[in-house]
Amino acid sequence: MVSFLAAVTAGTSLFMLPLAAEPGKTTPFMTAFFTAVSGLTGTGLAVVDTGTHWSTFGEVLLLVLAQIGGIGIMTLASLLAMMVSNRIGLQLQLTVRTETNTLNLGHVRRVALGVVVISLVVEAIGAVVLGLRLWLGYGYPPGQAFYSGVFHSVSAFNSVGLSLYPDNLTRFATDPWVSLTVVAVAVTGGLGFPVLFEVLRGRRRKRWSLHTRITVPVYLSLIAFGVLMFLVVEWARAGTLGPYGVWEKLLIGVFHGVQPGTAGFNTVDVSQFQPATLLVNDVLMFIGGGSAGTTGGIKVTTFALLAFVLLAEVRAEPSVHVMGRRLGNDVQRQAVTVALMGVAAVMIATLIMLATTSFRLDAVLFEAASAFGGVGMSTGITAQLPVVGQLVIMVLMFLGRLGPITLVSALALRERGRRYELPEERPIVG
Amino acid sequence: MVSFLAAVTAGTSLFMLPLAAEPGKTTPFMTAFFTAVSGLTGTGLAVVDTGTHWSTFGEVLLLVLAQIGGIGIMTLASLLAMMVSNRIGLQLQLTVRTETNTLNLGHVRRVALGVVVISLVVEAIGAVVLGLRLWLGYGYPPGQAFYSGVFHSVSAFNSVGLSLYPDNLTRFATDPWVSLTVVAVAVTGGLGFPVLFEVLRGRRRKRWSLHTRITVPVYLSLIAFGVLMFLVVEWARAGTLGPYGVWEKLLIGVFHGVQPGTAGFNTVDVSQFQPATLLVNDVLMFIGGGSAGTTGGIKVTTFALLAFVLLAEVRAEPSVHVMGRRLGNDVQRQAVTVALMGVAAVMIATLIMLATTSFRLDAVLFEAASAFGGVGMSTGITAQLPVVGQLVIMVLMFLGRLGPITLVSALALRERGRRYELPEERPIVG
Ligand SMILES: [K+]
Ligand SMILES: [K+]
Repeated sequence: MVSFLAAVTAGTSLFMLPLAAEPGKTTPFMTAFFTAVSGLTGTGLAVVDTGTHWSTFGEVLLLVLAQIGGIGIMTLASLLAMMVSNRIGLQLQLTVRTETNTLNLGHVRRVALGVVVISLVVEAIGAVVLGLRLWLGYGYPPGQAFYSGVFHSVSAFNSVGLSLYPDNLTRFATDPWVSLTVVAVAVTGGLGFPVLFEVLRGRRRKRWSLHTRITVPVYLSLIAFGVLMFLVVEWARAGTLGPYGVWEKLLIGVFHGVQPGTAGFNTVDVSQFQPATLLVNDVLMFIGGGSAGTTGGIKVTTFALLAFVLLAEVRAEPSVHVMGRRLGNDVQRQAVTVALMGVAAVMIATLIMLATTSFRLDAVLFEAASAFGGVGMSTGITAQLPVVGQLVIMVLMFLGRLGPITLVSALALRERGRRYELPEERPIVG
Repeated sequence: MVSFLAAVTAGTSLFMLPLAAEPGKTTPFMTAFFTAVSGLTGTGLAVVDTGTHWSTFGEVLLLVLAQIGGIGIMTLASLLAMMVSNRIGLQLQLTVRTETNTLNLGHVRRVALGVVVISLVVEAIGAVVLGLRLWLGYGYPPGQAFYSGVFHSVSAFNSVGLSLYPDNLTRFATDPWVSLTVVAVAVTGGLGFPVLFEVLRGRRRKRWSLHTRITVPVYLSLIAFGVLMFLVVEWARAGTLGPYGVWEKLLIGVFHGVQPGTAGFNTVDVSQFQPATLLVNDVLMFIGGGSAGTTGGIKVTTFALLAFVLLAEVRAEPSVHVMGRRLGNDVQRQAVTVALMGVAAVMIATLIMLATTSFRLDAVLFEAASAFGGVGMSTGITAQLPVVGQLVIMVLMFLGRLGPITLVSALALRERGRRYELPEERPIVG
């Protein structure tokens, strides 16, 4: 938390330097402050156009902040999750098998090192593929091609979603090399370090931890849902998929189904999305990606836990069993708490922005969900928000990225004994 | 459930009679079907204008359906709640004090009689006050004045919100006699039978059941929040409060703060509401009123339980204590289930309506929340919805009115033993 504040302060100061902006442009405090928070949280929402306002120094600074934020938050979140699991592991040492120990083996240096290595390796692979494609397929000079490759790969892995091009990645809409590489890198970052660590260690699937066994299929299902809904709603719309051929529609559909749970790039114009697409994206952005990953939101496992609780309740099962494991009451309550707090944050933020601007709910809710989910897709209103609206967006970016994991570790690590129990009484529900 | 279907069938058939419409008008099946469901659930959403389409016979039929629906559902819900509490009461007979037995004493006839008596007495008081006011204050002929008094009192108590006047109650916007009477009758109906029964029996507040001690203050707080937000957002808006004086603004604010949790009358034009007002109303309509009352929605106690769970979790308390009582894990999980199911129903319905029409999220979400909450306020889109949209609204009205209590009783009454417990494992949350 303190280091986050330090990084925000440093970032803000550096962004205010004349060096960071294009010649002749000055950067007011709010713009620098907003950009620093947006970069560190990997959100990529912007109050100025990235390409035309910032100099190359400013752009690289933004990327460096995003990389620091990505590595820092992934490491922090992994460590907090380890502490929480450790504690629970200690309590249940006799009944829990070895799977849960995945998160107990490491220590700070090992986790940080693991995060850095995985980040750099995945980014490097993405950068090479993108660079080669831009060099050989588009005839960019090699230096420019690989700079662009590095930029977009880092932007994708850390779920930033910013691009060097004013139309984001629209020019690559129909290029499967570029868009599928970006998708692969973004999804990898979005899965989160604990999952990547376990999967890359080559463990057989049966020995994966419950966390990984939940995250992978649920995340992929949410993405598939996003792809499907995008294709169904936008298939024939003039502003989005209409002009493209069938295979191109499918490629863009896959690309845009992935974005709400990851980086928030776009290859069609977000402001042309249908209201139904905006709503589907709102939900997916609010959920976000895997725990201790590069996205914001309440996270895939939190969403899945709510679904499991609901399912168990509907089936009248006295305890919640998932994939051969039981979920404790504490973790259920924590999931409910994170989800309710998230809903409250997004609703209050939306209400404040509605009351202080003349934008409509479609656009405002989308911007709020995008900020909370660290996605950064925008229908274009962020740049037009008054200062109070920008502050609200900044708080949402911060809460979405750091809130859930901080909240849960705080909840899980302290526990107060109760010296007496009151008699139970049941109000009517429903 | 079977009797609901029978009533819908009968209502639909009667509405299709030429007698039910104004001379020269015919009523297609969908219109009659929609109106029967809207009336029975006390929602009051309409696909035709009530005053100009229906004859007096049709209007009275609508009111009779609403009265039957109100009494029927209040009785059913009270009985189901008694059964649920009974069962729990049996399990905990030794530790629970007498308060919970409020719901255990009666039987079917007594509850039904109580519901009928309370409904008729409150409606009669409202009808007399309104009738006198219209007769003496507005110079209506006595017959017409008291017919109108009865109509609006029944409409208010059963949370219908339909009026004999094409502008709903706008003509009475600044008349405290009419609007405060309507408010009082509507809030009484909205509190729900268990609360009314207990309060009217004259029990001292300290001996109220937990259900009543939660419902009364939380319901009043939600109403106060609605009033406050309405005044803050609409105070100077030309389309709503702008033209009125300070006291008139306050009166209309109170009136419109109450409506989302009750009947859904209006004294200003709903289609002129600001987006922020619509969103606040969405939330309040989704919550609805007290259990076993005349409103829809997830109900005040369900909302309150979620808040208590969250509060206990944030305070790191191992169990949830409320007003000197402990909430069981089962009731917590039921509240979560009802809320999640409600959110899912409203979201899916909104998505379908967005995808099949060209309306925007503000209006569609408002209509969905209004239907689910049995409120019936409308920005005007229901009459323009395609058949699939009307069916979606009908399903929402049904689910909002009968879903939560049916769901919870089903959940609470059957309980499956588990023969073995799996080892616990904790995925990462947040
Ligand atoms: K992003
Ligand atoms: K109503």
